[in-house]
Amino acid sequence: MSKPLDFYFDFSSPYGYLAAMRIDDLAARYGRTVAWHPVLLGPVFKATGGAPLLTIPMKGQYSLYDVQRTARFHKIPYNHPTPCPIATHTPARAMLWIREAKGDDQAIAFAKLVFSAYFADGVHIGEAENVLAVAEQLGIDRAALGEGMASQPIKDRLKADVDQAMARGVFGAPFIFVDDEPFWGFDRFDQIAATLEHGKI
Amino acid sequence: MSKPLDFYFDFSSPYGYLAAMRIDDLAARYGRTVAWHPVLLGPVFKATGGAPLLTIPMKGQYSLYDVQRTARFHKIPYNHPTPCPIATHTPARAMLWIREAKGDDQAIAFAKLVFSAYFADGVHIGEAENVLAVAEQLGIDRAALGEGMASQPIKDRLKADVDQAMARGVFGAPFIFVDDEPFWGFDRFDQIAATLEHGKI
Repeated sequence: MSKPLDFYFDFSSPYGYLAAMRIDDLAARYGRTVAWHPVLLGPVFKATGGAPLLTIPMKGQYSLYDVQRTARFHKIPYNHPTPCPIATHTPARAMLWIREAKGDDQAIAFAKLVFSAYFADGVHIGEAENVLAVAEQLGIDRAALGEGMASQPIKDRLKADVDQAMARGVFGAPFIFVDDEPFWGFDRFDQIAATLEHGKI
Repeated sequence: MSKPLDFYFDFSSPYGYLAAMRIDDLAARYGRTVAWHPVLLGPVFKATGGAPLLTIPMKGQYSLYDVQRTARFHKIPYNHPTPCPIATHTPARAMLWIREAKGDDQAIAFAKLVFSAYFADGVHIGEAENVLAVAEQLGIDRAALGEGMASQPIKDRLKADVDQAMARGVFGAPFIFVDDEPFWGFDRFDQIAATLEHGKI
């Protein structure tokens, strides 16, 4: 039981943000680590006929209310950003480049800062300038990141990661695998904890 | 804090079944009762562009797995029925007639038996014969129910109830109101409990 949890997320997913604020702690309680996988829900929804939650009639309006209530329930800061959702190619590619250049710890620290910038501080993290500013907080060189995240190998890598996620069954975010057991949604953290503690439910 | 919880469900909703097996106990722990409202998700989905969960690509396959795991997690018997989903006009109308003719306790007892017949015992509860057989377990006269549930006033009543539910924002099932606070999904029972204990989150 020592494989990392696989955590798939889109930087624009509100419940993905809530999961991102808690998943490392959840895994650590059971002696596990987390492999963070940024993906893009746009291509996923194109393939599955899904839609961004907040754009769905009635369900969108409720979900906007629910996510804020859920954040309060779990004592996670939340200020709903405008616009939301947004395209998140830029921070996703930045994270992949940071992982390659600076290692996984820096990449995960960056991902958490990006999520907080968007969902707590209202920073538009789809814009390259803002992504570079977030990375700078970790001492990452703007010019190197700017060039790296726009490079073809990083673009190809993100595309391949999205395809691989879909092939594994990821149809939304947050999506978590404990070994090969799939869990969709922040709501499933109780069942993830039970699985980590006792094995498959 | 003595108003009943409003519980909206479709007899064909797997998570609605899980909620139905637990909601009276949940409410009772906080001195509340539950008003049970059968609705039809067909017209709701027509109005909102929604779709039966199990028919959605990828999400449907996952959900079929998830609902069974969730049932095990909560120690609720579950045997996925075939076919599912089904049209549930018949048991919904039967429940409305039983409420009028026999009172609310009998109607709720009937609803629980219908849910268990479908999701534990594999009985096709869209068929009138099977609905009548379930009601017979409660000593309800087949002929009277058969006539009552096919009557125009009961049909009109169900249609009006579905319209009223949609007007209140019900876009899926299970859907629960604590006073006017909306909760969608069996996943929200923890937040419902917190609301019943401490007031609005």
